[in-house]
Amino acid sequence: MAESKILFERVTILGIGLIGSSLVRAMRQQGVVRHVTVVDFNEAHRARSLETGLADGATADVAEGVKDADLVVFATPLGAFAALAAAMRPALKAGAIVTDVGSVKQTAIADIQPHIPHGVHFVPGHPIAGTEHSGPDAGFAELFQGRYCLLTPLPDCDPEAVAQVAALWRRCGATVETMEPAHHDRVLAITSHLPHLIAFTIVGTAADLAEDLKQEVIRYSASGFRDFTRIAASDPVMWRDIFLNNREAVLEIIQRFTEDLTALQRAIRKGEGEVLQDLFARTRAIRRGVVDIRQA
Amino acid sequence: MAESKILFERVTILGIGLIGSSLVRAMRQQGVVRHVTVVDFNEAHRARSLETGLADGATADVAEGVKDADLVVFATPLGAFAALAAAMRPALKAGAIVTDVGSVKQTAIADIQPHIPHGVHFVPGHPIAGTEHSGPDAGFAELFQGRYCLLTPLPDCDPEAVAQVAALWRRCGATVETMEPAHHDRVLAITSHLPHLIAFTIVGTAADLAEDLKQEVIRYSASGFRDFTRIAASDPVMWRDIFLNNREAVLEIIQRFTEDLTALQRAIRKGEGEVLQDLFARTRAIRRGVVDIRQA
Repeated sequence: MAESKILFERVTILGIGLIGSSLVRAMRQQGVVRHVTVVDFNEAHRARSLETGLADGATADVAEGVKDADLVVFATPLGAFAALAAAMRPALKAGAIVTDVGSVKQTAIADIQPHIPHGVHFVPGHPIAGTEHSGPDAGFAELFQGRYCLLTPLPDCDPEAVAQVAALWRRCGATVETMEPAHHDRVLAITSHLPHLIAFTIVGTAADLAEDLKQEVIRYSASGFRDFTRIAASDPVMWRDIFLNNREAVLEIIQRFTEDLTALQRAIRKGEGEVLQDLFARTRAIRRGVVDIRQA
Repeated sequence: MAESKILFERVTILGIGLIGSSLVRAMRQQGVVRHVTVVDFNEAHRARSLETGLADGATADVAEGVKDADLVVFATPLGAFAALAAAMRPALKAGAIVTDVGSVKQTAIADIQPHIPHGVHFVPGHPIAGTEHSGPDAGFAELFQGRYCLLTPLPDCDPEAVAQVAALWRRCGATVETMEPAHHDRVLAITSHLPHLIAFTIVGTAADLAEDLKQEVIRYSASGFRDFTRIAASDPVMWRDIFLNNREAVLEIIQRFTEDLTALQRAIRKGEGEVLQDLFARTRAIRRGVVDIRQA
């Protein structure tokens, strides 16, 4: 028997892209919300939100958009958070909950928390889900099914507000865990930011090849390269902001990666087959770990 | 109406792994072959080949295995080619065709061609297809459907033998193209060998983390890392041999990749958002190229 209890009467989504529109679809499918307002500076996205029934109302005016909201969700690229938070601040109603879906938690908190009035509760969050597609039409209700959503509340955050946001994500199909913001940013630098950076780099290396060689690389991409092109097709602005906002953790893990790559390069140059085979056997074991916990 | 003309009465497969067993399944499904002999030093693989009906006969004796073959297919890791070719040489019958599925063509040719007797034809080949799984049970008849198979015949190779091998791969569903061996090795260094090396490296970087952090990386792998773990689960011995055999082309492309990564690292350190966004927009365009030619 499906739950259908309303968790929030009125929800306002700031930014109706892949994640924002997936969240709205999931909330509606689960009967979590009664009224959805979309705030987006892109006129086509606002129009599309109304046409498709994602939004009951849509506006480019942040204060107007959030004024009656029980829940406000920041779902834009990270670089827009500070300005949106400042614009939202005077209009928030008492008792409202603010959350976000940003991929870097320390800067999301630094950008939003100072603009949270007394009596309003900020619960930072990050659903570990996505695709390489962008925009309101790319979203789908099942995006969060079986995925994790990490919440990184500050120590003085109202436990009831945290429980409400956790309940929202669970109703959307996610497994919710809480984590320290700095720890989150370090883990995600490894699991997400470095893989994306590497994919962007390797596809960029190919993009710089002479035109005829580039066409061949595309043609024979099924041999490994195509998996990187999918990752490297993710939203450019969103990813720009992630790297600018998680700079230290990303630079640290790049450093480790580069050391490891240099060691492999040396093993290839010297013809050290055992070094290669040992590493490749260890990486195969990591894959078994991923498959075993059904995240493959 | 399906073709069902026999192309080769007797085929001998050297190595019944993912590719070898997929080829046998495809050949049988398409009615390309009448009798299949498997040569494999792994007793369990020989037994499995007979049990499943993949092989009509199985042996660990190379000369015995190839003596009546119309077609011999090298489908082991590259490192075994030279010794197998030497063992095969005295037993080959006149008019036989020898081919291989090795991922590096210049060394495959260097290892096999000297052992090809007068009156036998060697047609080097490489089907661009695979999965992260290994062994005779991992194969499937559809593996080559819609994929490319690259042939790299030497200039003096018998055109009729090349046509026969091309016909075989077409019947298995592949699109066949011919290419210079050195050019093949350079293209594959970019499309396949570098992506795999990078995936092995990044997953290896994670494997070296402290145990608790490693468990978290596995848990939250859906954010990008898991795609690399799939690639990095490919067969360790096969990949060891690829890197040892395509050393120069791989080292050259690593060098370019490292330069590009260093440039991105600098952009992140300096907070140069435009540099990042420009690159990420270009890599998205490459993805569209891959999707457009239906190799995604």
